Amino acid sequence: MPTRGRRPHGSPDARQAVLDAARELFAEQGFDRTTMRAVGTRAGVNPALIYHYFGDKDGLLAAVIEPPIDLAAMLTGINDDPSRAGQEITRRAISLWENRPDIRERMLAMLRTALSHDQAARLLRDMLSSWLLEAFGDALADDQCELRAALVGSHLGGLMLARYVFKVPGATAATPEDLVQAVGPTIQRYLTGTLTHAEAQPPHTRR
Amino acid sequence: MPTRGRRPHGSPDARQAVLDAARELFAEQGFDRTTMRAVGTRAGVNPALIYHYFGDKDGLLAAVIEPPIDLAAMLTGINDDPSRAGQEITRRAISLWENRPDIRERMLAMLRTALSHDQAARLLRDMLSSWLLEAFGDALADDQCELRAALVGSHLGGLMLARYVFKVPGATAATPEDLVQAVGPTIQRYLTGTLTHAEAQPPHTRR
Repeated sequence: MPTRGRRPHGSPDARQAVLDAARELFAEQGFDRTTMRAVGTRAGVNPALIYHYFGDKDGLLAAVIEPPIDLAAMLTGINDDPSRAGQEITRRAISLWENRPDIRERMLAMLRTALSHDQAARLLRDMLSSWLLEAFGDALADDQCELRAALVGSHLGGLMLARYVFKVPGATAATPEDLVQAVGPTIQRYLTGTLTHAEAQPPHTRR
Repeated sequence: MPTRGRRPHGSPDARQAVLDAARELFAEQGFDRTTMRAVGTRAGVNPALIYHYFGDKDGLLAAVIEPPIDLAAMLTGINDDPSRAGQEITRRAISLWENRPDIRERMLAMLRTALSHDQAARLLRDMLSSWLLEAFGDALADDQCELRAALVGSHLGGLMLARYVFKVPGATAATPEDLVQAVGPTIQRYLTGTLTHAEAQPPHTRR
C-alpha cells in the first residue's frame, strides 16, 4: 500500500496523473517524441517520480497500454457453452463499450498509441492474444488457434473503430443488439467453425 | 489548371511534395497542430503554393485522405455474380495490400490521419461508404444497406490493421488465400445474407 500523506511520492493520484498525462502525450505526439520531462510537467510531478513508479519510458508505455479493465474477469465463463461463446463475447464487448464510455475512451487511446508506435502495438497485441487464448483455451485448441484469435480480435477492434471513432452511419445507427446478431455468428465461426471452405475457392479462380 | 513551366508553382512534383509532407505531418503531429508553414517548409515550397493548389487546410486534408488508387475501378464488376461478391472483394483487397506495399502504406497513413482527427475520419468514411454503396448497389438495396457497408468496411479495415500494423501472429502467418477463405464467407453474409435472427442461423448450418 502506498504511504498516505506523503504526496506526491506515495499518492495513487500522482501515479494516475502520470498515466493520464503519458496517455495524452503519446496519443498527441507519439511515443518517440514524448519526453519524461514533458510527462512530468503535464502531470504536475517531478520526473524522478515517473522513474520511481515505472522504471523507464518503456515501463511507462506498458502501464499506459494496460487495458483499463480486468479482461480476464470479463472473459470468465465465456466458454462455458462453446457453441455460444462467439455470441457471448460479442455481447460482452459491445455492452462494455456502450455502458462504460470511460473505459471505451481509454481503450481507444490504447489503440491510437499502438497505431503510432511499433512497440506499443507489440505489447497490446501480446496482451490481447494471451487473454483470448486463455479464455477460449479448448475452443481454440487446434493448429489454427492463432488465426482464430487474430480474426476475432481484428473484427471486434474494427467494429469498435467504425462505431466510435469513424462513426460510420451504419455502425452508429445500429442498436447494440443489431450488432450482436449480425456479428455474433461470425465470431462464433471464427472461434469454433471451419475456416476453409471449398466454395471459397472454386476451380475457375484457383491459381 | 496550374501553369506549366513555372516550377515550383506549376510542377506536379511540387504538388506531390506538398501532399507527402502534409501526410507525414498530419500523422506525426495531428491535423490541428500542423501549420501550412510547416508543410511548406518540409515540402520545400512557399506556403502560398499550398493555398494555390488546395484552397485551405481542409482542402489539403481532403487531398491527403483521397485514396491512392481508383477504388471505383478496383470494384468494377465485383457484383457481376452477387453470390460471390464477398469472396471477390476480400480477394481483391488482400491482393492489393500484398502486392502493392506502396499503396498499402498510403492507405495505412490515411487511417492513422483519420484516427487522429474527426474531420479526416468523416471524409474517409463518406468516401468509402459511397464507393461501397455504388459498387454493390443492388446487393445492398435493403433497409440494412448502411449496416452492411459498415460491417464490410470495418472487418476488412480491422484485418488490414491486424496484419500490417499490429502484426498479430495469426494474421501475419496466414497466407492471403487462408484469409480469403476465412473472411470471404463473412463478407458474403454481410453483403447478401441475413443479419438478424442470429439464433436461427447457427454457424454449423453454414456447411
